[in-house]
Amino acid sequence: MTTPVAGIIIGNEVLTAKVTDANGPLLVKRLRDRGLALALLATVPDDVDAIVETVQLARRRARNIVTSGGIGPTHDDVTVRAVALALGRRVVRLPEIEAKVKEHYGKRATPQAMRLADAPEGAELVYQDGIWYPVLACDGVFMLPGVPDLFRIQLETVLGRLPRGTLTTAAMYLSATEPEIARALDEVALSMPHVPIGSYPTFDASLGYKVKVTVEHPEPGPVREVVARLEKLLPAGCILRLE
Amino acid sequence: MTTPVAGIIIGNEVLTAKVTDANGPLLVKRLRDRGLALALLATVPDDVDAIVETVQLARRRARNIVTSGGIGPTHDDVTVRAVALALGRRVVRLPEIEAKVKEHYGKRATPQAMRLADAPEGAELVYQDGIWYPVLACDGVFMLPGVPDLFRIQLETVLGRLPRGTLTTAAMYLSATEPEIARALDEVALSMPHVPIGSYPTFDASLGYKVKVTVEHPEPGPVREVVARLEKLLPAGCILRLE
Repeated sequence: MTTPVAGIIIGNEVLTAKVTDANGPLLVKRLRDRGLALALLATVPDDVDAIVETVQLARRRARNIVTSGGIGPTHDDVTVRAVALALGRRVVRLPEIEAKVKEHYGKRATPQAMRLADAPEGAELVYQDGIWYPVLACDGVFMLPGVPDLFRIQLETVLGRLPRGTLTTAAMYLSATEPEIARALDEVALSMPHVPIGSYPTFDASLGYKVKVTVEHPEPGPVREVVARLEKLLPAGCILRLE
Repeated sequence: MTTPVAGIIIGNEVLTAKVTDANGPLLVKRLRDRGLALALLATVPDDVDAIVETVQLARRRARNIVTSGGIGPTHDDVTVRAVALALGRRVVRLPEIEAKVKEHYGKRATPQAMRLADAPEGAELVYQDGIWYPVLACDGVFMLPGVPDLFRIQLETVLGRLPRGTLTTAAMYLSATEPEIARALDEVALSMPHVPIGSYPTFDASLGYKVKVTVEHPEPGPVREVVARLEKLLPAGCILRLE
């Protein structure tokens, strides 16, 4: 599966249960709509060290990273500084955004407001109609605001920059338990390691099945092949339905 | 703030939007109920390398880690192996759990089912009344099942093992914008860096305020001191209410 994207939600408020994170689930969903899966989704505090370490981990796992939060003029907005550190770049003040901050805030454009014009050196500014502040993008890291209304809008700005994926999926609902199907799954998964197979047991009898097995691949051929091999190898009669 | 816990949600199904993660939000909430905040909450795929790297990152940030998922007999259940690798421990089969698997599954206790008896060498088994399978705990890593009903129950088993925290919080609702309050926040945050101060703007006019400022500390004294200093330094008349 293509997994070129990682998400990093930056915010003490999520980790301390003051707010429920809406941006992470939205990111997962909107990427999925485009055939993309996340390689990692991490929520971290407003702490430079924690963000640096997590960006570095995410960069080993994904070509593109979307961050949420920590963009703003107050002391707890440390995303730009942390991302710059993780990328080994300096922080610079961009005259292009400085002018926009002055225009937007007018007489409330305090010296602190100018921090909104800071960016990792070499950052690209990605604009969308109707929003005065651009998305900062640098080395595949897209830095989005954490306020959910703004994140939602700016995520669409970013999605246009990401490659589209394709994804074929199949789901098999089984009346057998995991111990009874594990050998068949082993055999197919080991011989076709490039096709992710998931096994999800449920203990809720009202669902009418015991395990849901999922198969995914960018191309339909490998999905069909895995399903055909499982149909032969799984215990007789255990497939309730195939979707 | 005491942040001794990190959470790792292991599951392709969450990252591909097939299911919405309920375990992460529950972990955040139940820890908060006990005065504890998370140092990190990461969702990773069913991939040994990704889990190893994330466990190692989490161990640098937190004394205790709760994992969700990847506990089971199928090929995609790799949590025990990955956690053992991250801890530099071998995987061993525990006769105590083997006996329980045989008793629980009866004639469905296939050789694959016995994988449920695998654990990092030196793991402690944490039992709770009413559940036959214990929580595996090793070097502060608690490995919980991902099925939400089981996670919810076993989380309570684990919570009893964690220290309780205390937390005093205050929230100030302001009519001023972030650029207007950033200087006051800077001054107080810089002189009292041990007291986390959060600044959360909103652009929803119906809420009646522009920024919510939060102050947190295990002890009430520092919270009171920060609030008192902010009351002096913030623009006159901008505090709408204090909670």
